[in-house]
Amino acid sequence: MADANASHPIAPEASAGSRRTRGGAEARRAARSRPKLEQLPFIARKIPLVEVLSEEGLQIIENNADTILEEVGIEFRDDAEVVALWKDAGADVQGTRLRFPRGLPRSLIQKTAPREYVQHARNPLRNVTIGGNNTVFAPVYGPPFIRSLDEGRRYATIEDFRNFVKLAYLTPAMHHSGGTVCEPVDLPVNKRHLDMVYSHLRYSDKPFMGSVTHPDRAADTVELAKIAFGAEFVQQNTVITSLINANSPMVWDGTMLGALKVYARNNQATVVTPFILSGAMSPVTAAGTLAQVLAEVLSGAATTQLIRPGAPVVFGVFASSMSMQSGAPTFGTPEPTLVSFAAGQLARRLGIPFRTGGSLCGSKVPDAQAAYESAQTLLPTLLAGTNFVLHAAGWLEGGLASGYEKFVMDADQLGMMQVLSNNVDLTENGQAMDAIREVGAREFGAARHYLECGHTQRNFETAFYRSTIADNNSFEQWLAEGEQDAAQRANKLWKKMLAEYEAPPIDPGIDEALLDYIERRKASFPDSDV
Amino acid sequence: MADANASHPIAPEASAGSRRTRGGAEARRAARSRPKLEQLPFIARKIPLVEVLSEEGLQIIENNADTILEEVGIEFRDDAEVVALWKDAGADVQGTRLRFPRGLPRSLIQKTAPREYVQHARNPLRNVTIGGNNTVFAPVYGPPFIRSLDEGRRYATIEDFRNFVKLAYLTPAMHHSGGTVCEPVDLPVNKRHLDMVYSHLRYSDKPFMGSVTHPDRAADTVELAKIAFGAEFVQQNTVITSLINANSPMVWDGTMLGALKVYARNNQATVVTPFILSGAMSPVTAAGTLAQVLAEVLSGAATTQLIRPGAPVVFGVFASSMSMQSGAPTFGTPEPTLVSFAAGQLARRLGIPFRTGGSLCGSKVPDAQAAYESAQTLLPTLLAGTNFVLHAAGWLEGGLASGYEKFVMDADQLGMMQVLSNNVDLTENGQAMDAIREVGAREFGAARHYLECGHTQRNFETAFYRSTIADNNSFEQWLAEGEQDAAQRANKLWKKMLAEYEAPPIDPGIDEALLDYIERRKASFPDSDV
Repeated sequence: MADANASHPIAPEASAGSRRTRGGAEARRAARSRPKLEQLPFIARKIPLVEVLSEEGLQIIENNADTILEEVGIEFRDDAEVVALWKDAGADVQGTRLRFPRGLPRSLIQKTAPREYVQHARNPLRNVTIGGNNTVFAPVYGPPFIRSLDEGRRYATIEDFRNFVKLAYLTPAMHHSGGTVCEPVDLPVNKRHLDMVYSHLRYSDKPFMGSVTHPDRAADTVELAKIAFGAEFVQQNTVITSLINANSPMVWDGTMLGALKVYARNNQATVVTPFILSGAMSPVTAAGTLAQVLAEVLSGAATTQLIRPGAPVVFGVFASSMSMQSGAPTFGTPEPTLVSFAAGQLARRLGIPFRTGGSLCGSKVPDAQAAYESAQTLLPTLLAGTNFVLHAAGWLEGGLASGYEKFVMDADQLGMMQVLSNNVDLTENGQAMDAIREVGAREFGAARHYLECGHTQRNFETAFYRSTIADNNSFEQWLAEGEQDAAQRANKLWKKMLAEYEAPPIDPGIDEALLDYIERRKASFPDSDV
Repeated sequence: MADANASHPIAPEASAGSRRTRGGAEARRAARSRPKLEQLPFIARKIPLVEVLSEEGLQIIENNADTILEEVGIEFRDDAEVVALWKDAGADVQGTRLRFPRGLPRSLIQKTAPREYVQHARNPLRNVTIGGNNTVFAPVYGPPFIRSLDEGRRYATIEDFRNFVKLAYLTPAMHHSGGTVCEPVDLPVNKRHLDMVYSHLRYSDKPFMGSVTHPDRAADTVELAKIAFGAEFVQQNTVITSLINANSPMVWDGTMLGALKVYARNNQATVVTPFILSGAMSPVTAAGTLAQVLAEVLSGAATTQLIRPGAPVVFGVFASSMSMQSGAPTFGTPEPTLVSFAAGQLARRLGIPFRTGGSLCGSKVPDAQAAYESAQTLLPTLLAGTNFVLHAAGWLEGGLASGYEKFVMDADQLGMMQVLSNNVDLTENGQAMDAIREVGAREFGAARHYLECGHTQRNFETAFYRSTIADNNSFEQWLAEGEQDAAQRANKLWKKMLAEYEAPPIDPGIDEALLDYIERRKASFPDSDV
């Protein structure tokens, strides 16, 4: 296994290119004078997974996926290059509809796609290994709105974007900076990706995601990464993981294929993801959904290997069920949970990393509905063996809004998942027989408790996860403090975090080069909102 | 396996004793004219469990428990009879402290305690089988306060008690009526159990729990059950499951032993439960807690088998961690989750049913904290293989308050757990290949979705769990309806349920006999608040 925590040549304050010398010493001094931010490494799970399908069940789904690929086929739209590659590889091409000999896409993936990969961060301490027993949390992706207790719901701006990047940076159990943490609709559609990528590189030092809304924007992402990491480093290592959604049922469109090609060709990772609302984009049943999802993933992930064998690719599935009242997607319900558990098994058999779930909910506000649904998505996400967890914090309203309070509430849950993943400590200290003997030797009465015994005193500081949101004070103290609910406490917390935020160090030369690239690109074509 | 759903001789409208004829026909007519309440049978899990301990880990814990029993011993206070029984069985008795030869308590349990048992309900359709792959949900137990949006927090009354019994009766996925759904503090302590048991028998037809606060009150519970079920039936069948808490660390007190003896002697079930706040009643570590819990359960459960071999007994554990700020118990945190997962494994190896978890939380109000914590307890409770789930709905504020809104919110989650337990449907209809072929044959475009295909139409009504609480309407409709949060919707729901409640039928002769017994008992000794 590759070691994500090994140092790599591009430390943030000693970076690549001709501009490296200028300002490096200042940045190092600044880093030394700043209090250390406690960050948690990505999760290396020590707890078992929930596997709901038997061997027979898995074979049924895999067989059905092969049948879909062979009989029904998959549409590859507006990309003659990909169609030609598939034709050469042995697919049956009828216009844009491609049909695949049984087992061909699977064998292409298994031949060259890595089981896990390191995504390098600007700060090598934040490198993550995606795959295996690991789980990496990344923030909400995609909402055009934000919601806060102060402002309610409104369109998101680049300022909000920066805020969510900063909150993710400040969250110990958030291992990744994510991508479109909200959609900065105050910037032109065809240029906002430049500000978004810059925000990830400047306001965080965690790994990030690239633009996929146009192949040129994917190319811009790669160019900016080359400035930050060095061109040679980017060709040999993965520094971007990007989200490629299928247009389910059974379609890959030209935009997504275009972005996929840019990233794969540059050895950058893609998360190939059927975005499923069961009953609309897939059958209403879990087994039907799983077969279609597997067929879609097989065709999309194999495409990356046709472009560049060995390019990292992730098996993604975004599963939701449907409200019978409104037709809207619903979350935290049992049907998508079963899809996630089973899809994790399919991904492990295929042999590539897995992405699903997050802290998803349909609720408009950070209330009990939001929390039930998010927890009922997040814990199954962990127990499904998910390697890359998008939407791990901040998701509201079916993905229409990024919530400030919701973000820090979810972040608290991520910390708990990190502890849960460590499993039971069976060391001698964990067994605590000395404590039991000490307390047991006492006579029955007031002192026969563990509060003051030596083992408790030695372990108390680290024994229990400390929630950042929960109020566990006495009823009387809670009354005296104004009977606040979790959302009100969360409102205070995110404001405090942003107020105390300090940017991670960056080589001023790199920063200047990034800004220079962005300025030149923005000047080279007119603004547009498509 | 015993079949809980087989008919038994005491149907509610054709019951035992000399009073059976009077009014039976009216009750049957009433039952026929009433719309059928859709109830769900207890859960027969088809999903795998989470087992966090390896064989080696389990042996460590079991060995440590045996060491605790052998070296440290367990206190049996204020019960000479139980101490004498243990002395005869081979325990080393030093005053009230008993030490046990390695393996003795385990072998006593494994020789005669049933792996699972049927608890009969007044309505045989509501019988539950506790043990095996089954999960039975029961409501919150014990709070002296209630909370509602209308009244805030106040002391509970017998009217509240009846209300929670009615809400549990009306909740399809609540399989059990529970016990002290709240503490009716408006009634004298030494008589309120009579009204509580009567409420369960009169306002519900689901199985219930008995009084444990004094041996005489346990005896009253058995007498009332004999009136409802027939004396002979009660001696041969289990109709009461009662909660026996250890006084951790490592003490059984006289009150609990007295109640345990009454129930075991009458072949009624006990849930032998160390009530653990880690760091105070047990070591701060999970492995230390588990060893102590196992030792306590072994000593308590084996005691039931000394009283009456074959009496049903359940391995219980109530696990919480501690707030470092306030010393209060905390819930929905990773440490008790690990204890629950591991304790389920220990119970299955021991070979008796298992109880843990519920929908626990520390929050004072039904907010996001309450929901995160409850969901992060409930799903692990299911995945731990819990057979009897107390506190499955209504728990607030660390068990100090029964919440009206919280009850119906949690009840919604129970319905989801019931669906999740069914696992993926792998039938031909579940595989849905006809749907995929039908939709896949269409050309790309607007109609290429599953909404109108035949398979969807045939399955849509039952495909997805329908939440009773979640709002999945459009943002605009939600705005138009007043931007309500989950608690506000829950407030409407429980009031509607209580307004529409109709009592299940009961033989008027039985009802009269129950009331007559209660009246005579209440008149036979003065009120007291101890």
